[in-house]
Amino acid sequence: MNLLLFEPDEIGDDNTVSFQDRRSAHLIGTLGCSPGDTVRAGLINGPSGTGEILAVMGKGKGARVVLRFTAVKEVGREPPIDLILGMVRPIMLKRVLRQVASLGVGEIFLINSNRVEKSFFEASLLQDKQYRAYLLEGLEQARDTRLPHLSVHRRFRPFVEDFIPTIAGKYGQLLVAHPEAGTGVRVAAERAPGARTLLAVGPEGGWIDYEVEKFVSRGFTPVSMGPRVLRTDTAVVALLAQLMVLARGW
Amino acid sequence: MNLLLFEPDEIGDDNTVSFQDRRSAHLIGTLGCSPGDTVRAGLINGPSGTGEILAVMGKGKGARVVLRFTAVKEVGREPPIDLILGMVRPIMLKRVLRQVASLGVGEIFLINSNRVEKSFFEASLLQDKQYRAYLLEGLEQARDTRLPHLSVHRRFRPFVEDFIPTIAGKYGQLLVAHPEAGTGVRVAAERAPGARTLLAVGPEGGWIDYEVEKFVSRGFTPVSMGPRVLRTDTAVVALLAQLMVLARGW
Repeated sequence: MNLLLFEPDEIGDDNTVSFQDRRSAHLIGTLGCSPGDTVRAGLINGPSGTGEILAVMGKGKGARVVLRFTAVKEVGREPPIDLILGMVRPIMLKRVLRQVASLGVGEIFLINSNRVEKSFFEASLLQDKQYRAYLLEGLEQARDTRLPHLSVHRRFRPFVEDFIPTIAGKYGQLLVAHPEAGTGVRVAAERAPGARTLLAVGPEGGWIDYEVEKFVSRGFTPVSMGPRVLRTDTAVVALLAQLMVLARGW
Repeated sequence: MNLLLFEPDEIGDDNTVSFQDRRSAHLIGTLGCSPGDTVRAGLINGPSGTGEILAVMGKGKGARVVLRFTAVKEVGREPPIDLILGMVRPIMLKRVLRQVASLGVGEIFLINSNRVEKSFFEASLLQDKQYRAYLLEGLEQARDTRLPHLSVHRRFRPFVEDFIPTIAGKYGQLLVAHPEAGTGVRVAAERAPGARTLLAVGPEGGWIDYEVEKFVSRGFTPVSMGPRVLRTDTAVVALLAQLMVLARGW
């Protein structure tokens, strides 16, 4: 945890926040902080800054902490990449959400596809926004406060045929990852330097040809990372990292 | 499993191989293959090609399979990137080894560092080359036969001071990942386009300043992916993917 995150409604008018959960357990039980210490802190979807520990009630992992937050830096701009992801197994999804949030994306669209097991949509991870905990872990790691927005789309065709056209105008490029594509990521990305990107990565087993064709019919370019076939979790991190380094001058 | 891999000593003079293990369980129990079927197959550190199933003895996951291998393609060239990795927790190491092998690196040097728990070196994963199973899983995923070479170095200073100078001549660039570095990956990589690269990624918690200085004194350039602090597993995949896309024209 490189940044302590709070919900906006946790902060009082005097800029203090009081908590007794995994965050206090980490501060007191793991880091051994005490009153007077200052830690990096931030408001979810708000500014980041510092938190001064005013009081510690109780000991170790069960302690309650009262902290005063001082905002220093406004929330960062929305990252220039959004991700469409074919639904994966819950255990992989947790890791992917953590990693994607730590790399930084604006929106995540979890969608159905031919090679997705229907049961994945029933996972407790998707109930009551339980996935949010994993996105927050990624932000805590990366010291970011901007929470990616996540939505779940249980039907492939309506998502691609009806929903994509309503958002496509936001993007300078639409890419669909497909190991058999003839165009490499670099060539595609350099056609639209710095453009806001919507990237679609398939589930385990990949998109089927019909799905790739549907994406193409809505303006997506199939891109490949080369002849190696990667697992979804590796491909997501690798492709986001590549698009980020290609979009940036440094 | 996108490629069935064999040890060189498993193949007989008649190019047949007989096995009854997780590979036969996958072919028969999971994929439902039967005699006459052909699958992608390869020899570890040798050619890849096809395997024709000659016989299946027994049923389902316990079946024994006899297969004839036909070599089609020579083993690929050594990937142009080698990786120095600060030792991580065994559970993370398994995943990193799988992912790194699927992306393709030549050598992996697992090294000690200040922020490494000593117990990590006692992990069963490092005994009797048990880590090899995870590298092979990565190759099976990526359809590659070239197994990365892995070595373990339990002392930081001798590795950097004595060992690095014996191999440094192989590389056109030496990079050490460090979030606080002033140089970005792209700028560094474009100074030595296409050069063989040795990349050092720290353990959980990162390299300490002394370690970064030691690397620098041996010719390494500190590079950063930006202000976001990434976990080791995310950073390894992201940096390898970035170096690959920057080194390649497409």
